[in-house]
Amino acid sequence: MQAPDLKRWERVQAKLAESNIAALVCRLTENVLMTSGYWPILGRSVVVFPTEGKPVLIAPVSESGEAERGWISDVRTFRAWRIGDIDPEASISKLLGQVLAERGLLGKRIGFEGTYGDIAATQRFFEPWAGVHSVLASWASAGGGGEWVDFGPQLVDLAGVKTDREIERVRRANEVADFGLAAFVRESVPGKRESEIAAAVESAILTQGIGYQGVTHARGEAEVISGPRTGWAWDFPTTTNRVVEKGDLVLIEFAVVADGYWSDLTRTVVAGTMNAEQRRLAEAQRAAYQAALQAMKPGVPDAGPDAAARKALDKFGMRDLFAHHTGHGIGFRYHEAIPSVHPDSKGVLQAGMITSLEPGLYGEKFGYRVEDNVLITSTGAEPLCRSPRWPGLEP
Amino acid sequence: MQAPDLKRWERVQAKLAESNIAALVCRLTENVLMTSGYWPILGRSVVVFPTEGKPVLIAPVSESGEAERGWISDVRTFRAWRIGDIDPEASISKLLGQVLAERGLLGKRIGFEGTYGDIAATQRFFEPWAGVHSVLASWASAGGGGEWVDFGPQLVDLAGVKTDREIERVRRANEVADFGLAAFVRESVPGKRESEIAAAVESAILTQGIGYQGVTHARGEAEVISGPRTGWAWDFPTTTNRVVEKGDLVLIEFAVVADGYWSDLTRTVVAGTMNAEQRRLAEAQRAAYQAALQAMKPGVPDAGPDAAARKALDKFGMRDLFAHHTGHGIGFRYHEAIPSVHPDSKGVLQAGMITSLEPGLYGEKFGYRVEDNVLITSTGAEPLCRSPRWPGLEP
Repeated sequence: MQAPDLKRWERVQAKLAESNIAALVCRLTENVLMTSGYWPILGRSVVVFPTEGKPVLIAPVSESGEAERGWISDVRTFRAWRIGDIDPEASISKLLGQVLAERGLLGKRIGFEGTYGDIAATQRFFEPWAGVHSVLASWASAGGGGEWVDFGPQLVDLAGVKTDREIERVRRANEVADFGLAAFVRESVPGKRESEIAAAVESAILTQGIGYQGVTHARGEAEVISGPRTGWAWDFPTTTNRVVEKGDLVLIEFAVVADGYWSDLTRTVVAGTMNAEQRRLAEAQRAAYQAALQAMKPGVPDAGPDAAARKALDKFGMRDLFAHHTGHGIGFRYHEAIPSVHPDSKGVLQAGMITSLEPGLYGEKFGYRVEDNVLITSTGAEPLCRSPRWPGLEP
Repeated sequence: MQAPDLKRWERVQAKLAESNIAALVCRLTENVLMTSGYWPILGRSVVVFPTEGKPVLIAPVSESGEAERGWISDVRTFRAWRIGDIDPEASISKLLGQVLAERGLLGKRIGFEGTYGDIAATQRFFEPWAGVHSVLASWASAGGGGEWVDFGPQLVDLAGVKTDREIERVRRANEVADFGLAAFVRESVPGKRESEIAAAVESAILTQGIGYQGVTHARGEAEVISGPRTGWAWDFPTTTNRVVEKGDLVLIEFAVVADGYWSDLTRTVVAGTMNAEQRRLAEAQRAAYQAALQAMKPGVPDAGPDAAARKALDKFGMRDLFAHHTGHGIGFRYHEAIPSVHPDSKGVLQAGMITSLEPGLYGEKFGYRVEDNVLITSTGAEPLCRSPRWPGLEP
């Protein structure tokens, strides 16, 4: 058992109290992680987080070991997928009813995840449990007829500003990602297939990430895009078996998860020697990145660094090549809503936020993007990833 | 554009007509794949499938290329995550309203995914879109006040029996998985870490799977468990950096997805020479597997092959080591509900079903499981994977 992240617990309790809610019952992977420090394997785990008193974790008995690496000492377990208890939902509802009764929460206002869209992967990333609503009826019945209140938007707010401990975990995910980016640079040579490059990157995460600085579970998703395909690099293409040709731009969109905390990085390299056009692209992207980074500090409107990035591109006549936002939140998920570094954003940067920083330049047959995850510090902003950003350019 | 799988379309239409529903509107990855032949990248795509007339696909413009590999010729696209249209949900609702109006479906009974739990990964597997319910209000409003009916259970039913084309796709996923299992056998030697073995397996899927027999996207999840950890092999442990020792059992729980169709396989090997105890385990597991396989054919109750597997274990005194079901459905997802080869199941096997076949034997410090995906044919049952099952045992 780790000592709880009391800073996080206080923030959750304050938000619940503010909404006049007696307890939160949550189940999505990212929210279980945020409130318990434990990253579920299957996604069937539930946290009961009262406004007063300690939280309780309901988890499969098979995840007891994982749960013990988290912060909640009161763990109620259920068996699942054994003969006789093949579907755990009834066990979960029963345990939930018991916990709510013990804590005097029956009939009270209970917060739940009523609004969600994209969700974080569990450790078993190919089949997350997503049916929050489909069990709500049985939960509500276990809750003794209390009012169930959508706490989804508040959970998004809560995720927006990280605690010191969470920052260290996201930093660690970025450090694990460095192993993958080193493989990416090494393997991005003419003659290699995109799929071979992606395989080398993902292998580096598994073999070097697990065990790094206490990380127990690490995985990467490397989407490698080369040549003219880089022109669609913002449109979420995935790795193919295209063979990289001499002089191609090669771009990686790269997600890494280390014990539930995420990084989201991009690098672009040239397979061979950079030509003048590619150099100019890289210089423009670097200028946009640096201008946005310099504009990031607490108290600044989100839209400010975005405007700074676009203005820097004007000098290169490339403003129109940058069609998307400058940054999004990151940490408990691959993409979070806060902050949103975007022309239309009305938010304000705060210390402890982590944002992607990813101005990108795209034409019909080329794309160039460097993306980092940047911590808003008390005085400015700090990239969490140490991999070289613009190989081929002078520093 | 591929020719549509008319057999699948007829079945969906018949099920809709049976429920007196004018159209299905679906969005979960597995259901978009089943109805359109296209595996979404992000999971924001929507299929409108009327009981009469051709279906319509609403998809991000960035996935047009993927959609063209599917069966639906009428594709309505939306832009997303660009400046000015950062969140696509409003665009989707608008397009949905237009499609429903064109097809005369406003105010009619519309089926939707109202019940779901585990969901299939999209191509970008780390962050699936899961919030079906959170947009239902805007969909219902787009639907012109018609009645929205939960079609979730019927979709599960529909997935249970595969068409010939779907069977070929699941077979192909099994063939891709063979590349990974060959790597698993090769790498499971003393001195290797579980994470190194898993990396080699997953690399084989990326590098040999993409491009195999027309497969455009392939990924594997290899969970490698060794030594005493195999005793928890049913409890969904994940890969660690444990070093395999001489004589260890090494077990892989292995999911592969090829263009959206899944395989779910397990193999167990000994790192070194099999000892007498391990041999007896393997012989018992083989006997259970073979007894269940022989008992599988159309018209047989699901519970029959399960009972046959357990009876075979009696000869070895090992019935109590087998604590879980014998099989579950597979194809559009890693785990499907139909069939359920389990003592309590009331279902009946039908030709075209695909089931896992996975009797497993577990003690405190050992586990042994071989899992295949088995097609119920018109006369019996056929394993879809060709990798050796019990290396070290005489055939």
